Amino acid sequence: MRLRIFCGLSTVLCCAVATAWASDQSTLKPVVNAAGKTLSFDWPMVRVGTAEYEEGPTGVTVFHFGRKVLGAVDVRGGGPGTVNTDFLRLGYDAPELDAVVFAGGSWYGLEATTAVASALKDDGIRDGGWMTLALSVGAIIYDLGDRRLNEIYPDKQLAQAAFRGAQPGVFPLGPYGAGRLAKSGGYFGCNAHSGQGGAFRQIGDLKIAAFTVVNALGVVTNRDGSIASCYRDPTWPKSLSAAELSAGLPDSRKPGWKGPSMQADAKRNTTISLVVTNQVMTPAELQRLAVQVHTSMARGIQPFATEFDGDVLYAVSTGELPKSEPLQITSADIGIIASDVMWDAILASQPEQPVAAQPDKRLKLKGDQLEPLAGTYIFSEFAKISVTARENRLFAQATGARDAFAIRRAAPVELLPVSATEFAVPGRYPLTVKFEEGKVVLNPGRWQQIGKRE
Amino acid sequence: MRLRIFCGLSTVLCCAVATAWASDQSTLKPVVNAAGKTLSFDWPMVRVGTAEYEEGPTGVTVFHFGRKVLGAVDVRGGGPGTVNTDFLRLGYDAPELDAVVFAGGSWYGLEATTAVASALKDDGIRDGGWMTLALSVGAIIYDLGDRRLNEIYPDKQLAQAAFRGAQPGVFPLGPYGAGRLAKSGGYFGCNAHSGQGGAFRQIGDLKIAAFTVVNALGVVTNRDGSIASCYRDPTWPKSLSAAELSAGLPDSRKPGWKGPSMQADAKRNTTISLVVTNQVMTPAELQRLAVQVHTSMARGIQPFATEFDGDVLYAVSTGELPKSEPLQITSADIGIIASDVMWDAILASQPEQPVAAQPDKRLKLKGDQLEPLAGTYIFSEFAKISVTARENRLFAQATGARDAFAIRRAAPVELLPVSATEFAVPGRYPLTVKFEEGKVVLNPGRWQQIGKRE
Amino acid sequence: MRLRIFCGLSTVLCCAVATAWASDQSTLKPVVNAAGKTLSFDWPMVRVGTAEYEEGPTGVTVFHFGRKVLGAVDVRGGGPGTVNTDFLRLGYDAPELDAVVFAGGSWYGLEATTAVASALKDDGIRDGGWMTLALSVGAIIYDLGDRRLNEIYPDKQLAQAAFRGAQPGVFPLGPYGAGRLAKSGGYFGCNAHSGQGGAFRQIGDLKIAAFTVVNALGVVTNRDGSIASCYRDPTWPKSLSAAELSAGLPDSRKPGWKGPSMQADAKRNTTISLVVTNQVMTPAELQRLAVQVHTSMARGIQPFATEFDGDVLYAVSTGELPKSEPLQITSADIGIIASDVMWDAILASQPEQPVAAQPDKRLKLKGDQLEPLAGTYIFSEFAKISVTARENRLFAQATGARDAFAIRRAAPVELLPVSATEFAVPGRYPLTVKFEEGKVVLNPGRWQQIGKRE
Amino acid sequence: MRLRIFCGLSTVLCCAVATAWASDQSTLKPVVNAAGKTLSFDWPMVRVGTAEYEEGPTGVTVFHFGRKVLGAVDVRGGGPGTVNTDFLRLGYDAPELDAVVFAGGSWYGLEATTAVASALKDDGIRDGGWMTLALSVGAIIYDLGDRRLNEIYPDKQLAQAAFRGAQPGVFPLGPYGAGRLAKSGGYFGCNAHSGQGGAFRQIGDLKIAAFTVVNALGVVTNRDGSIASCYRDPTWPKSLSAAELSAGLPDSRKPGWKGPSMQADAKRNTTISLVVTNQVMTPAELQRLAVQVHTSMARGIQPFATEFDGDVLYAVSTGELPKSEPLQITSADIGIIASDVMWDAILASQPEQPVAAQPDKRLKLKGDQLEPLAGTYIFSEFAKISVTARENRLFAQATGARDAFAIRRAAPVELLPVSATEFAVPGRYPLTVKFEEGKVVLNPGRWQQIGKRE
Repeated sequence: MRLRIFCGLSTVLCCAVATAWASDQSTLKPVVNAAGKTLSFDWPMVRVGTAEYEEGPTGVTVFHFGRKVLGAVDVRGGGPGTVNTDFLRLGYDAPELDAVVFAGGSWYGLEATTAVASALKDDGIRDGGWMTLALSVGAIIYDLGDRRLNEIYPDKQLAQAAFRGAQPGVFPLGPYGAGRLAKSGGYFGCNAHSGQGGAFRQIGDLKIAAFTVVNALGVVTNRDGSIASCYRDPTWPKSLSAAELSAGLPDSRKPGWKGPSMQADAKRNTTISLVVTNQVMTPAELQRLAVQVHTSMARGIQPFATEFDGDVLYAVSTGELPKSEPLQITSADIGIIASDVMWDAILASQPEQPVAAQPDKRLKLKGDQLEPLAGTYIFSEFAKISVTARENRLFAQATGARDAFAIRRAAPVELLPVSATEFAVPGRYPLTVKFEEGKVVLNPGRWQQIGKRE
Repeated sequence: MRLRIFCGLSTVLCCAVATAWASDQSTLKPVVNAAGKTLSFDWPMVRVGTAEYEEGPTGVTVFHFGRKVLGAVDVRGGGPGTVNTDFLRLGYDAPELDAVVFAGGSWYGLEATTAVASALKDDGIRDGGWMTLALSVGAIIYDLGDRRLNEIYPDKQLAQAAFRGAQPGVFPLGPYGAGRLAKSGGYFGCNAHSGQGGAFRQIGDLKIAAFTVVNALGVVTNRDGSIASCYRDPTWPKSLSAAELSAGLPDSRKPGWKGPSMQADAKRNTTISLVVTNQVMTPAELQRLAVQVHTSMARGIQPFATEFDGDVLYAVSTGELPKSEPLQITSADIGIIASDVMWDAILASQPEQPVAAQPDKRLKLKGDQLEPLAGTYIFSEFAKISVTARENRLFAQATGARDAFAIRRAAPVELLPVSATEFAVPGRYPLTVKFEEGKVVLNPGRWQQIGKRE
Repeated sequence: MRLRIFCGLSTVLCCAVATAWASDQSTLKPVVNAAGKTLSFDWPMVRVGTAEYEEGPTGVTVFHFGRKVLGAVDVRGGGPGTVNTDFLRLGYDAPELDAVVFAGGSWYGLEATTAVASALKDDGIRDGGWMTLALSVGAIIYDLGDRRLNEIYPDKQLAQAAFRGAQPGVFPLGPYGAGRLAKSGGYFGCNAHSGQGGAFRQIGDLKIAAFTVVNALGVVTNRDGSIASCYRDPTWPKSLSAAELSAGLPDSRKPGWKGPSMQADAKRNTTISLVVTNQVMTPAELQRLAVQVHTSMARGIQPFATEFDGDVLYAVSTGELPKSEPLQITSADIGIIASDVMWDAILASQPEQPVAAQPDKRLKLKGDQLEPLAGTYIFSEFAKISVTARENRLFAQATGARDAFAIRRAAPVELLPVSATEFAVPGRYPLTVKFEEGKVVLNPGRWQQIGKRE
Repeated sequence: MRLRIFCGLSTVLCCAVATAWASDQSTLKPVVNAAGKTLSFDWPMVRVGTAEYEEGPTGVTVFHFGRKVLGAVDVRGGGPGTVNTDFLRLGYDAPELDAVVFAGGSWYGLEATTAVASALKDDGIRDGGWMTLALSVGAIIYDLGDRRLNEIYPDKQLAQAAFRGAQPGVFPLGPYGAGRLAKSGGYFGCNAHSGQGGAFRQIGDLKIAAFTVVNALGVVTNRDGSIASCYRDPTWPKSLSAAELSAGLPDSRKPGWKGPSMQADAKRNTTISLVVTNQVMTPAELQRLAVQVHTSMARGIQPFATEFDGDVLYAVSTGELPKSEPLQITSADIGIIASDVMWDAILASQPEQPVAAQPDKRLKLKGDQLEPLAGTYIFSEFAKISVTARENRLFAQATGARDAFAIRRAAPVELLPVSATEFAVPGRYPLTVKFEEGKVVLNPGRWQQIGKRE
């Protein structure tokens, strides 16, 4: 089990440090409904909104239903963060649920869930009447720690922007919304960029949608057993499957072994999911759907439901489609079909992995080209790097409270030139360093971190 | 089971109404650590802060522990509102919990719980590291509906004020903090003002504290079985006990019966509680403590854990006191003692019930005294009353979207003079109406509602 | 928490001991539907059968419903013994339950539950078809240990006898069926004989029945807070209430204190209960009923749901009475009324406590009267006593593997004459010793133990 | 959801039928520790015994630990049958568990679990002392219905024989013990014979064993995604994978579709499993192991945890191997490795599928050869077939209360000759009919059913 460093008895001292770290998020600007690839689906009752703070990056995804719906929940991971799941469990029969909210930011991101309830109230859709209260439920992923150089989290402003931007029929796939900074496969050192996935299937009048934010300790696995996303260990055979990764344990954790190894810092996960059907369901049937679909995800994510995941799945029945007799499609069938749709959703969550810039070995930069780049660059109150030029070579070292990816506090690392302003630190996980006017950009692109020159 | 009125399929229409109801709470001023009677206790590790918006009134109570503590939860009511209980259930062995947060505002008030996590981060006590995340858990009571004329709820600002005001050893008793607008006994029509209660016992080095916000459908019951707080039905015998109220069912719900009756609008409750010990406990022992103490509350609140309560109890072990052998006091003893301390806490939650102003039958006011009082008074976007003077008598009628206590929309009610500026509407539940410069105050005092002249 | 003595690694050795203790129960004769006071109720759908082995004594109570019914369960105690509760939880909506079975014998007595399923099959009421399987659920109480001198448990033969003897409308009150050797109040040293209780209420067409086997660590408590059953400590004030017993902690456990003390051997309990209504209920409503009624039992049994109880409550809806609109009696009302009926059932479980025979101080028996009584008396494979006559006085000492009530292994205790054949050992807990032809009877009467002369 | 036929209100009528069906199992002879392929493992603490009634066939598997061990349970299926799981959940920290018992016979087979507790007592290993009670937990599979022609179930005699035959280090693989009549893949019409599987892995001193009785609605799936066992639909492509079967839904249920179809009578399942480690674990860690391994089984059985499964997994820590620091293998690793071992166990459960005898089209039998075979053959109180010879052809028709596989009540079916005494009914599911002296054997071999000539 985990150990924790904590403040201990000297509370007063702890509190004194305070405000030093405080970050004011009120100036950040939500980016609403950004998207690359999207899932389109025909279902007016299911409205989706996403919003992101690019400065994190981190984000939130809001599912707002067109009326009160029936909800159920299945929590399986060792470290979940949730809001209002007890209400779903204690079992009223009536539809009560308004919205499901997923966010980054770990437990801090739960603010997104409560924000949607108050937005429903402020916008006059719900109020304080016993019969007309807003019910939002939610869950979060861990997208902090060493995967970025700040601790911005999805807050009330961001969640309400996503809620108010919600629209039917469009769901951004990949690193958007709550999946903005998701990763997968850390257990085997994959550390692949991940995201949110969705899939939809309609059979006659029956509709089933599955959505998931894959931030899993395990590796995303294709239907043929192959690994969907991974920064692979260079020693691995090409054909290595997810099952073989598991079978390779525990040798894989011994130093010197040619197989996979787990990074100490990879234990930071949680996959959060939602399955929706328009079929009328009883609470028992909906709970069964939640259990079955959640269990089935162990196929698409291997391993699943570990101690370092906080896996949560919500199931929703909008109740639009009455049961008809004789049933062509039973509730048992729906469970199996929905599990298949969820596997599609898992696979749809994986973006193309960025490729690192390759140093140009023939390129020799001179001191007067390098020296202007030297200086200290600040990413946040706890992360900064110091860049120095020496003997026609450029070096960087973390000088804040934490490491900055491969730029560590322990010793300077050489930045190898790709061009006059772009450099790289080779390794399993790509690190590109680009200098621009007054700032440095680490890994330019969708997952970039920007440091401002001091 | 409950039926609910909801927006239905015309989502677009629903959303269009929006902003009309929006209330900006940013101008409200938190009142921190207000208190009348208080519980004092010697326990540096247990810090308590309260904050209230008097304009509601509604409030929040924050328990902040001096280090990571072990937590457990028992949820028993039919309609709970909770944050992060799943984490407590899925059972890490290590202490992880930082704070327990109770608030009014029903599900909207859950914002208070997430606000304490972000305050812990902003103040530098916790951060985004996997080992140093802030964990706050919480629950809410329903203090909206017809018990006040606005829907202000405990928000981030209020909760962070309470958190930052937290201090060891002092706990305000009665209508403070999360108990600011609690009520009890609605099932039998008591509708007594209630509040938050606390009690503490130290036996050698062993410390046990119990805290509870009593907002119960049931009646608070003394150890001798008598009713602690109630606006009693005038036909009840003086000696009527809580047990007799139950035994009187179901005749008590028939019209014309001389026993207790339940108001249709009384179904709005939840009792939320916390028991803390400094004894080292295993997760299993702490869970047992939670179950046993929560169950025992059925003695002090009758009935308890109904469909219309959302009862939640958290149990915390600060782990300061190691187990010693041979144990003088076993974990079984602690459960029983803590249950007794909790009964003390329940009883300590009950404030003195305000007595209504009595109309002075000999007092005859004239038209020119009454006419200046006439006018429309606005309480909130949905509550206003119209006061009219006619034939030397004063009348009031609700003209907003909802009734204002005994001043209803259906027909004008006469305001009987107590003095030249104070009036009363007689009845089981006291209503005093006081006119001041440019405003009217309903039930002046701790639970007053202020309407501003249009 | 408990420590346990176990066989440890030397399994072989453990197993070798074997057969020495084996007890053949096949020659025991079930006593079916014995009764003193009974509860009568008009409800053909609810059939009750009891059976007992007087040689224990121990017994079983079977509730067999006239058709498949809906069931729910609430488990709250620290050490329960149950069968098939998971099926009730996982929540099909359809009625599936045939029978609820309560028994003595601790975990060994769970054989009674499975026996009723096979009896339903053998009797052709159910079979092996997926749709027509027999479903019995059950729970047990601990009635072994030092409260009797043998380990006979309710087995298949006994349970099937009770099942086949089941009849509608009659429920034996007190030490019958599963409550045959129940006790209550051990935590405070009461060690009162207890039993099974039942109560019934009909309101219009609505029927509610409550049944409970009270084998509680806590004391049974009247509605006015007084103690219903207890071998009281002679130093206690007459008026001592259950609440005062709790409030007296922990001084009550210090040696020399004049208040209650807990016997080391009193930690052996479990209260198992059943509430039945004919009202149609959804699974959620029935679960709420189970939770609410079980919680309410903390009033009639104080303390309740401790670590040393294994408290279980089943709730059943026979579904005979459809819901009608407008409801005169809501599901919330039913919960409160049923809780009140359950309190009646708890109180009805308590038999009159036997009074010990009083030694006649003037009676002097001579050696030739006493010597014929001397000898060794065997109760079971592990319990025997040796009676010796010396200097015109009679002594007894346990010579088996365990103590025999106040006749202990440590030293002989004098048996004071009540008559020529009846003797007593004075103390808080009465022990009467009666010699008959070839045997000795301890505590002659309903709870007697018989030792045969070697 | 399921519908059920039940006795309804006419209880008297139901009960009257009685004894007609009663089956006396006391003359059946347990076959103990029969085995074909076995798993061998070096672990003295884990003793395994199996016993079967060949007349069913049905059986039981007992795991008896050499000392009290810590247990946990995860129940996921829609229709489980369990004993004593609540005790495992309510969470004492101390090891209490003696044995895990798996059996056939659906809910009737739970008698096997209680039988092991009483055997532990009768054999003197445990007794009635609070600290030395026997704790057995268990679960069952459904092996009744149309898969055999009788309703013999694993009873006390059978379970105690298995318990007393338990030995360390040997586990029979395939159709033995509780897996004696297991099937798999019914959802897709596979109806493959299944069984019990086991696997063991030792890493340094760490031991992990996994055992499972695979009686799954889903198909057993190899690590490459292919189907491990199935009576395949003749129209399926050779390479059809489990994932493709799911993806084919719901067309697969339409008549005339060329893909898989689900038999109406295939809904009868439950997979029950046990994972054991010698590593010391806290209750929370062991619960995590249970959750994670159970979830992982969705890879090897597709679909898993459906409404028609009653899936249960027990996890046990024998506590022999203390935790050492620094851990080479963490509890997270153990979860992943154990999941892999469980996949091995699932695959090891599948026996070779029997191949049906093929009719010899050239073989022409004459009336005087066939007529001696004619007659009525009785399998049980509800199953018999009538064999008639007509025009040199042989026909069979079920004449009891139920069908006998492909020999149905609706109409006679022709038995095509394989030899003079062996016949076949062609079809997806093989049916071989062999006549012997005074009896008929359906499907001779491990899964045969014997009918005696009337």
